Amino acid sequence: MSAPSSPKTLFLGSFVHSKSLGELDFLHDSAVCVDEKGVIVALEKDCDQKLIEENVFPKLGWTANEVTIRTSRPGQFFFPGFIDTHIHAPQYPNAGIFGKSTLLDWLNTYTFPMESSLSDASKAKKVYSRVIERTISHGTTTASYYATISVPSTNFLADLCLEKGQRAFIGRCCMDSLAPDYYRDESAATSLADTRATIKHITDIDPTNSLITPILTPRFAPSCSSKLMHGLGALQKESNLPIQTHISENKNECALVKELFPEYDSYTEVYDGHGLLGPKTILAHAIHLSEAELDLIKKREGKISHCPVSNSSITSGTARVRWMLNKGVDVGLGTDMSGGYSPSVLEAVRHAALVSNHVAMGGDDTAKLSVEEVLYLATRGGAKVVGLGDRIGGFGVGMEWDAQLIGMSMVGSEEKGDTGPVDIFGWETWDERIAKWVFNGDDRNTLAVWVKGRLVHERII
Amino acid sequence: MSAPSSPKTLFLGSFVHSKSLGELDFLHDSAVCVDEKGVIVALEKDCDQKLIEENVFPKLGWTANEVTIRTSRPGQFFFPGFIDTHIHAPQYPNAGIFGKSTLLDWLNTYTFPMESSLSDASKAKKVYSRVIERTISHGTTTASYYATISVPSTNFLADLCLEKGQRAFIGRCCMDSLAPDYYRDESAATSLADTRATIKHITDIDPTNSLITPILTPRFAPSCSSKLMHGLGALQKESNLPIQTHISENKNECALVKELFPEYDSYTEVYDGHGLLGPKTILAHAIHLSEAELDLIKKREGKISHCPVSNSSITSGTARVRWMLNKGVDVGLGTDMSGGYSPSVLEAVRHAALVSNHVAMGGDDTAKLSVEEVLYLATRGGAKVVGLGDRIGGFGVGMEWDAQLIGMSMVGSEEKGDTGPVDIFGWETWDERIAKWVFNGDDRNTLAVWVKGRLVHERII
Repeated sequence: MSAPSSPKTLFLGSFVHSKSLGELDFLHDSAVCVDEKGVIVALEKDCDQKLIEENVFPKLGWTANEVTIRTSRPGQFFFPGFIDTHIHAPQYPNAGIFGKSTLLDWLNTYTFPMESSLSDASKAKKVYSRVIERTISHGTTTASYYATISVPSTNFLADLCLEKGQRAFIGRCCMDSLAPDYYRDESAATSLADTRATIKHITDIDPTNSLITPILTPRFAPSCSSKLMHGLGALQKESNLPIQTHISENKNECALVKELFPEYDSYTEVYDGHGLLGPKTILAHAIHLSEAELDLIKKREGKISHCPVSNSSITSGTARVRWMLNKGVDVGLGTDMSGGYSPSVLEAVRHAALVSNHVAMGGDDTAKLSVEEVLYLATRGGAKVVGLGDRIGGFGVGMEWDAQLIGMSMVGSEEKGDTGPVDIFGWETWDERIAKWVFNGDDRNTLAVWVKGRLVHERII
Repeated sequence: MSAPSSPKTLFLGSFVHSKSLGELDFLHDSAVCVDEKGVIVALEKDCDQKLIEENVFPKLGWTANEVTIRTSRPGQFFFPGFIDTHIHAPQYPNAGIFGKSTLLDWLNTYTFPMESSLSDASKAKKVYSRVIERTISHGTTTASYYATISVPSTNFLADLCLEKGQRAFIGRCCMDSLAPDYYRDESAATSLADTRATIKHITDIDPTNSLITPILTPRFAPSCSSKLMHGLGALQKESNLPIQTHISENKNECALVKELFPEYDSYTEVYDGHGLLGPKTILAHAIHLSEAELDLIKKREGKISHCPVSNSSITSGTARVRWMLNKGVDVGLGTDMSGGYSPSVLEAVRHAALVSNHVAMGGDDTAKLSVEEVLYLATRGGAKVVGLGDRIGGFGVGMEWDAQLIGMSMVGSEEKGDTGPVDIFGWETWDERIAKWVFNGDDRNTLAVWVKGRLVHERII
């Protein structure tokens, strides 16, 4: 099994992506050529099909009859695929179910029972198939998944992502402490061995990690023994694989870490002291960090996954993203489903704006994130967080074509079917159209999705 | 023109509505009979079509062949229509467009220009048609609309609601102060005369206010002269019509009111002193109220429209709904579109929960609102706020059939088409299904909508 190749494709029309944190780039009447490997080999502005065929195809050695053409209609645009830097695949059936819980009781009440139940292969197949299809339909071209402690079901998630064509980081959850008997690694040794087993499986199915990459996943410090964390730190050094974990999500959790690891001065130092904090580490949440902790994360070049929907849902707090960005730390967005109720990164995008408003209402007037900024976090920001900043998250020659085609409903047009929840009256500027999509858009506006040049989803209306 | 009658209808299946603030009532294998006037004339539990036809129809004088039958499929349920207690119809084209603005600059930058432009009849027709269709599709059976200062376009909104069958309160905006020259009532006298003109029009088209009711609408204290507010207070006394306005939304607005009306001790007293605070007054936002102000609102039996999406979007603050409820004040939900980006009450429902979490994170552990509570606010709570607590917001004999049929996607079923964003795996409890709908549902889950017994929307999939 390996990622299938895609046809040479010429994309024509409007392309929108982040130029910088605060600025979108609008490329109209433009063209992008994508080769069989899914790599962008040409990007031309102010052109049309004829010009590209005459001037660009010869340089690429392409002939018109071998090229698939895909054009965005007026008002539609190609946008980079979303990168979900933190999502728990097995929790999908619980999306929206969290009651009034907060982190620690939420884990015991909803999460551990559900994750544990996915050691049943048929249930895992049903749930994982659906979560991949759903997230792709929401425009998620890359996801950094937490699976469960089960090796077969974690491997199965990797197989399914490869088959369905979603770029993914797959992490078997490591947790040998403070979890219920029915759902806990037997020991640090078995946890490490099981982790190696999923790494081997992924290497077998995708030897170059062209689409699927293993990611070391100590669940979070309270559920990992020091021995396990040291083991994972050593494994990272040996393998150079990425790491994902949670940090400073909830005040009770922070107190627990202090109690469990009294020899460390902070939560961040717990990870750092175990060799788990480096440039390939994705830290989810990071809400209650001290200045010294953020300084340490910056020094180690650690990355942060901001999960605004989750933080508002299970009442964790309001992460100070502006503070992180000002410090120069790379930040991406995570749905953290099902701590976050939605598998949609677009939902995380709009809540990143709203949560930043809540931080502003708390007194920091500079905290507000603009539409441009939250879209950056979901694309280029996320790409940096997962270590793929040079390959995905935007459009450019040499980057890979992970993209979605966005369309909105044109009031008064003759279009049939459900054209989605966003109404365009025709007088809106492009900035306004983007804002409308960000705040009211949903999967109906994601008309088609490509990963590495391969069409993985198309909405039939 | 008057509201058309509907056929006698027998609704069969599952019905869910609020029993009390904190509790939903689930009626399965039940039946509701609705007469030609849209009134529920029978509600029976644990029954089927045959039993109803044999035992209930004779008592009602109904014969089976004159009755339309509508059955909820397994997993589907009938739910009371949503009541949007605060929405600005002319602002619909701006939904999602607000940038980093807060109330006062938002009004001048986005809102006044848009509202003013709707004095153009063809633009008003296009916008108002769409906003009514959209809100109905989201399950809004009753809306308390702010229109614009224009009499013809306000009247036109009333005509359209009657035609499309949405129960509505229609308010011409009164504003003779502190608004731009291009969009302001000429004087208190013209403002009152124009208001009377729209009242007359609505009385002409719906003499008994069976569906459409005029509502006095002083925009908010800063844009009304004392003379205008006194005039509207007198008009209320004369007409006994409801009133809607804004209160204490934004701290700068509160400071402005203090500056403009130094003779009053509080914002609430400004309205009270002008005869505008009574049992038929809907006050939107009410974020920065003092204890004394809430006491006064309670004493006058004033109602509050909580608009969580708006408050988080234009950074107004976090309203303390638990505090209001504990005080015994009636609270409903408003979209406040386009201060709120969404025309969907369901979006307001989920944000009412999230904003209550933010209040809790601010220190009040009792603040959190449950799924049951936020659904109550959107139905029975809203019904009380608009003065129709005995007629809509729940199911019961003598109440009117304002309802929506809710369905979700059953994973693995053979259903075709887009069955919406919520996946039901089959093992969920009813409480869990409701939570899934609340947090991830959208207009695709609202399969059909009735107002006063009339089918006003049906989703074809």
